[in-house]
Amino acid sequence: MPTVRQQGKFTVLLSSAGRRVALLRLFCQTLKHLGFEGRLVVADSSRTAPTFHLANSSFQVPPCLDPSFPQAVLDICRREGVDLIVPTIDTELPVYAAHRDSFASEGVLVAVSSQETIDICRDKVRTHSWLGEHGFPTVEQWCGVPLPSYVPFPVIVKPRHGSASVGVCRAQDREEMEFYLRRIKDPMVEIELTGIEYTVNFYVSRKGRVVSAVPHQRMEVRAGEVSKGVTVKHGGLMETARRLGEALPQAFGAMNFQCFLGVDGVARITEINGRFGGGYPLAYHAGADFPRWLIEAALGREVDRPEYFDQWDDGCTMLRYDDAVYVKKSELEPPNDRVRQSGHV
Amino acid sequence: MPTVRQQGKFTVLLSSAGRRVALLRLFCQTLKHLGFEGRLVVADSSRTAPTFHLANSSFQVPPCLDPSFPQAVLDICRREGVDLIVPTIDTELPVYAAHRDSFASEGVLVAVSSQETIDICRDKVRTHSWLGEHGFPTVEQWCGVPLPSYVPFPVIVKPRHGSASVGVCRAQDREEMEFYLRRIKDPMVEIELTGIEYTVNFYVSRKGRVVSAVPHQRMEVRAGEVSKGVTVKHGGLMETARRLGEALPQAFGAMNFQCFLGVDGVARITEINGRFGGGYPLAYHAGADFPRWLIEAALGREVDRPEYFDQWDDGCTMLRYDDAVYVKKSELEPPNDRVRQSGHV
Repeated sequence: MPTVRQQGKFTVLLSSAGRRVALLRLFCQTLKHLGFEGRLVVADSSRTAPTFHLANSSFQVPPCLDPSFPQAVLDICRREGVDLIVPTIDTELPVYAAHRDSFASEGVLVAVSSQETIDICRDKVRTHSWLGEHGFPTVEQWCGVPLPSYVPFPVIVKPRHGSASVGVCRAQDREEMEFYLRRIKDPMVEIELTGIEYTVNFYVSRKGRVVSAVPHQRMEVRAGEVSKGVTVKHGGLMETARRLGEALPQAFGAMNFQCFLGVDGVARITEINGRFGGGYPLAYHAGADFPRWLIEAALGREVDRPEYFDQWDDGCTMLRYDDAVYVKKSELEPPNDRVRQSGHV
Repeated sequence: MPTVRQQGKFTVLLSSAGRRVALLRLFCQTLKHLGFEGRLVVADSSRTAPTFHLANSSFQVPPCLDPSFPQAVLDICRREGVDLIVPTIDTELPVYAAHRDSFASEGVLVAVSSQETIDICRDKVRTHSWLGEHGFPTVEQWCGVPLPSYVPFPVIVKPRHGSASVGVCRAQDREEMEFYLRRIKDPMVEIELTGIEYTVNFYVSRKGRVVSAVPHQRMEVRAGEVSKGVTVKHGGLMETARRLGEALPQAFGAMNFQCFLGVDGVARITEINGRFGGGYPLAYHAGADFPRWLIEAALGREVDRPEYFDQWDDGCTMLRYDDAVYVKKSELEPPNDRVRQSGHV
């Protein structure tokens, strides 16, 4: 422990927390279970983030790609005595990966993998080549190269660096494909996979061991995120998560991958995310307590219990709906010190 | 009152309730406020509807276009002593409008407008011509006719009978428009409106009087539904709602319209919905208690207080996030009697 931590207190900073209210609450709940006087701090570039109005303290920060972002977050850590930073969006991961040592020297653990692993996750073309090199089945893709004369339609045309299904188009024939290729910025083409779509949320310890892996079937998707899902204790998918987490260089924390499990039993991986998946609350409700393990890691305790790996409920089903926080318009206008301290999780 | 109602009890049936958990809770809360021993019953074609697992009783019913649907709902009404049916999805509105008299003869009020009004709302081409005939500004559209040689791009190409933004495409030029026209079933073309997008939730009494009208600006939309919105006390939009509700033949209950308010101050209406809007909970939190007025209507009391019209808070902001209900997979399998009675709102 490089810093003196106040006995019994623990502060989590949820970064770019946006609408991840469920995740905020899970950390809050876990801190209570562990007997901590816990505090949840939110950093977001927008005051209309629902989490902004529910945390103990909320700070408006520059967008994560702004050069002043790391310093702004460091200032919050000092002011609030933050012990653990949990990044949540893809674009901020490289920034946190690049700065995790400077946060560590202030006694703050950042729940992020190494830069190398984040670089692999962030770019669908790098993901694809890394998966191929390491013997993981993946989806055939073309990007920036002339397409072969025979392409098995339908195909998916999407932005190379996109996320949350934004700009994803399905082309049934060459005419449609070429139409979308002309209109999507930095596009790539993938074969449309058949089979059942799964997300596997997994947790990698600081020693690079995969502590837990929870596959869930995506029964229904809304705006690119699972809205109905069910956990499935599928040994093959869990083993894939184990191999993946151990093969990625210095992976750490909550991660997930998405795949299609074909009738041939092969799980073809389409993407890897180096952060909490949007559907992670389902894995938590099934029994996989990633927030606890991150808090333990920040306290210097290594999680190393092999029974955790499948210590969660099969068939746990999540059915999502909208809830909301209601605020007055005036609460969205920035006060002088860019902070609001009256939240409640 | 055609039936003997049990003193102090009131039962609401939320039809095709799906993920409308907030609406379910608002009715539950309102019944409590009114001092009723209230019960919330859900009918849905799917057991994966989140509301199915939160109501006092839930019934799996055939899809609303199935000929056996009305009888199935009537059976539930008898079994559960339903006082009020609240339809929620566009496709079931014509069915309920056609059968509202047979429900009335059983002592059940259906919160739906006349067939004529529902027919106007259900078809974008009819909506458009009705609005034009009644002097409401609307958006220029073409459907099933040769397009003029000059079309001001960009345009929106969408399915004539679509909802929730499914299949809606934006075309920047003629080539794009023709591409989408070939691919969308029963398509129509609209000019892309500029200005600020508003939804106005309004309530029409049984006498056809518009009791309340609450415009909200759509700050952010997700999967076709408002995810961030703010109420705006805009007199012009409120008056439009009043004229609309009074002009529609025998309109009744919770309704809403969507429009773009241009810099010229003209509100061009794009659609009218004869049901609770997805964003209605915002109007409720601002102070417009439509559930209460529907319950009063079922009790034979007419709501007629002109001060309700603007008795709600300006600048009330809704910031939505996902919550979820977690159930075991086994709970999604139908029991013998197709009913589950252990819910809790």
